[in-house]
Amino acid sequence: MTKLKFLPLCFAFIGLISCKTSQLKNLPAPETGMFKVSILYPAGEGKTFDMDYYEKSHMPMMAGFLGKNLKFYEIDKGISGRTSKDPAPFVAIGYFYCYDTAEYNKAVQQNITAILADIKKYTNIQPTIQISEIRQLSLNNPK
Amino acid sequence: MTKLKFLPLCFAFIGLISCKTSQLKNLPAPETGMFKVSILYPAGEGKTFDMDYYEKSHMPMMAGFLGKNLKFYEIDKGISGRTSKDPAPFVAIGYFYCYDTAEYNKAVQQNITAILADIKKYTNIQPTIQISEIRQLSLNNPK
Repeated sequence: MTKLKFLPLCFAFIGLISCKTSQLKNLPAPETGMFKVSILYPAGEGKTFDMDYYEKSHMPMMAGFLGKNLKFYEIDKGISGRTSKDPAPFVAIGYFYCYDTAEYNKAVQQNITAILADIKKYTNIQPTIQISEIRQLSLNNPK
Repeated sequence: MTKLKFLPLCFAFIGLISCKTSQLKNLPAPETGMFKVSILYPAGEGKTFDMDYYEKSHMPMMAGFLGKNLKFYEIDKGISGRTSKDPAPFVAIGYFYCYDTAEYNKAVQQNITAILADIKKYTNIQPTIQISEIRQLSLNNPK
């Protein structure tokens, strides 16, 4: 009977251990070996980009199309080039972190009409697209 | 005296709660509002890139120069363009996830001679450099 008193404590520690070990899987965090689709929008004269629409409408729509294969997506806004005096080469970059690139391509093809129509709503820029493998993630000096 | 029995349980739950809330800070995971320096190496005829040296030597050296301002770095290897038939626009991309871009630039300037000499050891490609703000990270369908 005495041992039953330790059950809540055991559960709490099991919870703590599984929390620590499951962290990466349940967070918008990359994992080595995953694939990343990068959609890069080059800056230039006469180029327009509606970040608000991209964040609130286009990317959530894409996430819906991509489904379970998409772990998370990220949106970067270009600030500058190498130094603050240099213009940013890309206005914005969107990233889809996926488990399977063939599944990614299949989902895009299935929804290609809607996707192409939607792109016109926020930009006149033809994006550069890259599929990469995440080779390495290295934590430096944790705070 | 009875209440003392609950102390280990309290500590375990406090540990669990703080584990959950501190996850992003102690992982190689991006956080919105952070800055990201992207070093993109465009592919092309006659371009060479030694990924092994880049991973094992150059990036760890850069991490040493950047210090506490660098949360983590990431290395992507280009696999393809939009479809598997298209060549990857970039051979490799390195990312530094930093808290402060002015500090990043200062550290690079202080070590610029060593950095430029080291780049020649792994590539003949002139990289494109972008500083971006991470606007959004959205977890999709966690597993």
